Amino acid sequence: MSIETLKWVDNSLVLLDQTLLPNHVEYKTYHEIEDIAEAIEQLVVRGAPAIGLTAAYAIAISAYKAKNQSSDFFLRSITKACDRLSQTRPTAVNLFWAIDKMQQIVTECNHLDNTAIYEALLNKAHELFEQDRLICRKMGSIGADLLPEKSRVITHCNAGALATADYGTALGMLYSAKDTGKSVTVYACETRPLLQGGRLTTWELQKNGIDVTIICDNMTASLLRHEDITCCVVGADRIAANGDVANKIGTYGLAILAKEHNVPFYIVAPISTLDLSIETGEHIPIERRHEDEVRRVMNNLITQKDVPVYNPSFDVTPYQYVSAIISEKGIARPPFSKTLRSWKMNEPLV
Amino acid sequence: MSIETLKWVDNSLVLLDQTLLPNHVEYKTYHEIEDIAEAIEQLVVRGAPAIGLTAAYAIAISAYKAKNQSSDFFLRSITKACDRLSQTRPTAVNLFWAIDKMQQIVTECNHLDNTAIYEALLNKAHELFEQDRLICRKMGSIGADLLPEKSRVITHCNAGALATADYGTALGMLYSAKDTGKSVTVYACETRPLLQGGRLTTWELQKNGIDVTIICDNMTASLLRHEDITCCVVGADRIAANGDVANKIGTYGLAILAKEHNVPFYIVAPISTLDLSIETGEHIPIERRHEDEVRRVMNNLITQKDVPVYNPSFDVTPYQYVSAIISEKGIARPPFSKTLRSWKMNEPLV
Repeated sequence: MSIETLKWVDNSLVLLDQTLLPNHVEYKTYHEIEDIAEAIEQLVVRGAPAIGLTAAYAIAISAYKAKNQSSDFFLRSITKACDRLSQTRPTAVNLFWAIDKMQQIVTECNHLDNTAIYEALLNKAHELFEQDRLICRKMGSIGADLLPEKSRVITHCNAGALATADYGTALGMLYSAKDTGKSVTVYACETRPLLQGGRLTTWELQKNGIDVTIICDNMTASLLRHEDITCCVVGADRIAANGDVANKIGTYGLAILAKEHNVPFYIVAPISTLDLSIETGEHIPIERRHEDEVRRVMNNLITQKDVPVYNPSFDVTPYQYVSAIISEKGIARPPFSKTLRSWKMNEPLV
Repeated sequence: MSIETLKWVDNSLVLLDQTLLPNHVEYKTYHEIEDIAEAIEQLVVRGAPAIGLTAAYAIAISAYKAKNQSSDFFLRSITKACDRLSQTRPTAVNLFWAIDKMQQIVTECNHLDNTAIYEALLNKAHELFEQDRLICRKMGSIGADLLPEKSRVITHCNAGALATADYGTALGMLYSAKDTGKSVTVYACETRPLLQGGRLTTWELQKNGIDVTIICDNMTASLLRHEDITCCVVGADRIAANGDVANKIGTYGLAILAKEHNVPFYIVAPISTLDLSIETGEHIPIERRHEDEVRRVMNNLITQKDVPVYNPSFDVTPYQYVSAIISEKGIARPPFSKTLRSWKMNEPLV
């Protein structure tokens, strides 16, 4: 992979600004929690795993900045950082999972001094980052086995290297298939309103030598009917205990269309995306974003400036439409509950 | 209705330039067949009925310009105009229907002089225009009976006053419901790539006092699941003998999603949209348009400039997904063949 989505440089977090892709490849350096929180909110960094890793590094930064203060101040700074980061985006559970992991470190290290706690936090962030790289490779290799020698795949949004530490979830499966000599052609839904498919997935796949064709989101049914589509593959922002999947708006519709055309619909996501505390998808909080995201495209108004807008950022695909969930632990088939529970029990594995 | 989509002024055709809406309301005057053909191709005027009427007036113009020449030259000019207009857009059958009607006039009037033929052609164009106005009102009134006192409707693309002489097909049904005191709320799919929903339908509905909310095309499944949607209503570009419907890309997917959520899916179209010479939708020619329509939004590049594109302008919805077809003759329910045949037999009625 030739893409670095986020990296740790000189006690700062460096993010590839994804709002500027594909026109500009620009890295920005962050030292402040508030700036990182806003970067998450504004989708400078996005994708469930990448958001989690960003939060982990942000917490390390909060510790770094307060480590020469009193222990009280130090711990309060970390708690404040965790609180602020928790409020950035509600749907992707990887964010809360990562914050949780970091808070566990603070608890485990409460007998140590500030510097030692900071070092433990930074080590944990690095560990989560490395783990995500390995997990993506593992999922990619497991998922690739589902693809025949030649496949034509529809994907939605961006679940690639740009959404993770490296390699990606859904796209990782395609990279892995290609690495083992299989032929993969991808149709990327542009993914309105923010065009993560059109701006990010096409850019990432072209950079990595995979054939990609861009389509408008409303063209998938036509494609499923007329082209020989092997499967649809997407990532996930949160998976409930029963296998219901929250993912980018449009995923649910695509899953229905895939089923109607007897095309398998695959979810690829690390087990950090599982939320067993939620029985079904109906309880997953769905972020509503600003109306101007729909009224504008790349900042240009496409409708009247006052027209009302419906803009949920995610939808929930009931498990009945999901053919398989691929994680670093293997492949789950419906009904999912038992497999998902067993996966989560002995986390982490990699 | 306060919108004039096309009008005849001083032996010229005046078109509202729909490529500039909603930012600019600008009328352009046309005297040349080639310019009108290009206006149709570039979607200055669009919508199956409006394209047919534009072609009818264009043929009248070709006669007007050649009426002082020899009879041979005059007739060749009309034939050339018909040929050029036939090549503009392949899917909407109303275009060919209107050209056919005009050619019938030439045949019927072949004993008359050029000026008399020109006058007969212009009268026919005016007649088709007036007929379309009446048909739209009639369809609106028939369709409105399908709506309860309060309804929440999803529509795709623009099948309103901007797609017809006046009032519209699918939107006519909503205007008529409102006129009879019913409450109508509309969700307009923005309809990528050319945003006829976001640019035209929202503008037209707001102008006519109907509540409208814009959504991205990929949000319909979420809306159908979570909001209490009464029905989906769209127009048509061509309807085959069995009731398969060609309409703007995205219609087929929306029809599947509506069925999956037990929401009725209605087509509103004049019988000039019926093509009984085609048994099923699979034989309807589907226009493929330029790749840059997808790569760009309002002229701004949203992806890499060389990324391959799939851009069919229409899709075909098999009749199994259609709850009813509403024309000026009444309401057809599946199976459609017999009713559609009976409608077409004694055309025109209005």
